[in-house]
Amino acid sequence: MKNISELRQDLVSGDWVVIATGRSKRPNDFISPKRARFVQLKKTCPFEKRFSNARVIYVKDGKAEGSDWWVQTVPNRYPALDTGVCAVFGKKGPYTVTNGAGAHEVVITADHTRSFASMTDQEAELVVQMYQDRFRMLQDDSCAKYISLFHNHGKLAGASISHPHSQIIAIPVIPPDVASSIEGSERYFAKEKKCVHCVMLQYDVKSRERLICESTYFITVAPFASRTAFELRIFPKSHHARFEDIAPDERADFARVLRISLAKLYHGLKNPDYNFFLHTAPVKNGRSFEHYHWHFEILPKTAIWAGFEIGTGIEISTIRPESAAAFLRKIKIA
Amino acid sequence: MKNISELRQDLVSGDWVVIATGRSKRPNDFISPKRARFVQLKKTCPFEKRFSNARVIYVKDGKAEGSDWWVQTVPNRYPALDTGVCAVFGKKGPYTVTNGAGAHEVVITADHTRSFASMTDQEAELVVQMYQDRFRMLQDDSCAKYISLFHNHGKLAGASISHPHSQIIAIPVIPPDVASSIEGSERYFAKEKKCVHCVMLQYDVKSRERLICESTYFITVAPFASRTAFELRIFPKSHHARFEDIAPDERADFARVLRISLAKLYHGLKNPDYNFFLHTAPVKNGRSFEHYHWHFEILPKTAIWAGFEIGTGIEISTIRPESAAAFLRKIKIA
Repeated sequence: MKNISELRQDLVSGDWVVIATGRSKRPNDFISPKRARFVQLKKTCPFEKRFSNARVIYVKDGKAEGSDWWVQTVPNRYPALDTGVCAVFGKKGPYTVTNGAGAHEVVITADHTRSFASMTDQEAELVVQMYQDRFRMLQDDSCAKYISLFHNHGKLAGASISHPHSQIIAIPVIPPDVASSIEGSERYFAKEKKCVHCVMLQYDVKSRERLICESTYFITVAPFASRTAFELRIFPKSHHARFEDIAPDERADFARVLRISLAKLYHGLKNPDYNFFLHTAPVKNGRSFEHYHWHFEILPKTAIWAGFEIGTGIEISTIRPESAAAFLRKIKIA
Repeated sequence: MKNISELRQDLVSGDWVVIATGRSKRPNDFISPKRARFVQLKKTCPFEKRFSNARVIYVKDGKAEGSDWWVQTVPNRYPALDTGVCAVFGKKGPYTVTNGAGAHEVVITADHTRSFASMTDQEAELVVQMYQDRFRMLQDDSCAKYISLFHNHGKLAGASISHPHSQIIAIPVIPPDVASSIEGSERYFAKEKKCVHCVMLQYDVKSRERLICESTYFITVAPFASRTAFELRIFPKSHHARFEDIAPDERADFARVLRISLAKLYHGLKNPDYNFFLHTAPVKNGRSFEHYHWHFEILPKTAIWAGFEIGTGIEISTIRPESAAAFLRKIKIA
């Protein structure tokens, strides 16, 4: 049994943190100049090769498996949470803790420099298919309560390797931000008998001033209450709680909208660093979470969250979402 | 009437964001190379002078007012929120919004390079006295629901000017993180009939493994559920909801503990960038908030919160708080 990390619950807020002792460093490793490792060169990049322990590999049309690869999923070499036994909840003094049971995978595309913004539709779709397939596998396979899918692009966004890659972490608790989002959706539904995300989308579609792009099934908006300048969200236009249930034609459409949205940021802001992540319903566990409406959130690193933001939870954005949307709308992507 | 910014409430989470249109930038200003302005040189520093519009100035003992200054409070030249009329809440479509009414002040010390870690006890105490006095003034003076006091040290922590300064922002709503903290404290009290912070402190004092320093009235700990490596919190040992009520002897003691805690980080991690902020009860408004227990939180920038942290609200720390505390305990500060 590996026990590489511990989850600890804040006694006041109920939030969880991960103490990743498996990745543990000595105190001296935190001294300033050593902080910001960032592997950028192709010749020293650990993600250039096809991994022998890859869990899944997809190749592009017309290429036989083995002769090439486009996207592979590998176990994270320094996992924040690890597979093994399920989480066992216990007490330390007044606190609730659990072992860091879960999974931590890395989804790597073959091109060292081309991220979503520069992919073809087919390439982007294969990545989204990998997301969907690994998502389903981890749901069935683990004792996870939530599957977090995210992508860090650039050093300021916390990437340690510039080679494009996404990460999937299966977590043994429902994360606080997801719980807050689900509770908000349920509270709104109980009061208004409507999905809160559908109401927001209707408002955005009607006013049009925060729309960035729209396809058959998806829509990209600058959220009315943007947490950061140039924040984007991609929503399915019709109500659905779960990303992993998308049909193949929706998946192709979504991959294209994700690619176009990121390409607009890439060209508009000249390749800014960014994070994107999925918000979707937690792993099925008896509760349906049917009032939730899955979406992707894209947050460019246009500012640093400092003492005010960290101390209050209120973010300051220095451009109106409506102005950011107007700017991005004008950028044409093929 | 100035109306420089707007607060918008997220319809799902209930959280607020500030759209600071008064600080508004054009879309092109967000293009990457322009992002990280950081004024570091003394000769170009705007905080070197005594401001003619300073609201309060304190001098050190033995110096007459006017002949010198140690700490001054000035209005922020680019305020996130501004004084004027009180906030008026209204609707935009399904959303609740309000004007950015409040206050935004900057507390500047006279030495360009010496921050808390290198101050004398007297110098630190004068800064804390300034915090307390401005805090009281803004409570009485404004229509604020909460007063946020924070300090950004270093570029990675979001400071735009290296000259040591703190900021105070009066906000027309109770911030989400403060609300969550207060609700957690009240929930715990309702169930256990005890202050949750007092319970945590008792546990820390008993186990001693997370203690960093202790004085007559205050204690610095590495929190059990640290959100970041080397996070520190300073608590008054006896229960009190409000920072602004500290007596002069407590204030002197607190200033010394704040100085020593930051000096331990400074020497231990070689001047890391950090944020610190105050969490205290909201402005009195009929509710007593008596179950709250004020404290300062200090978060060094030892890592970047990336897609996982932003998407889930779960932070990953790569050192056990107990190891961080043991390391900092050993660092002796005069």
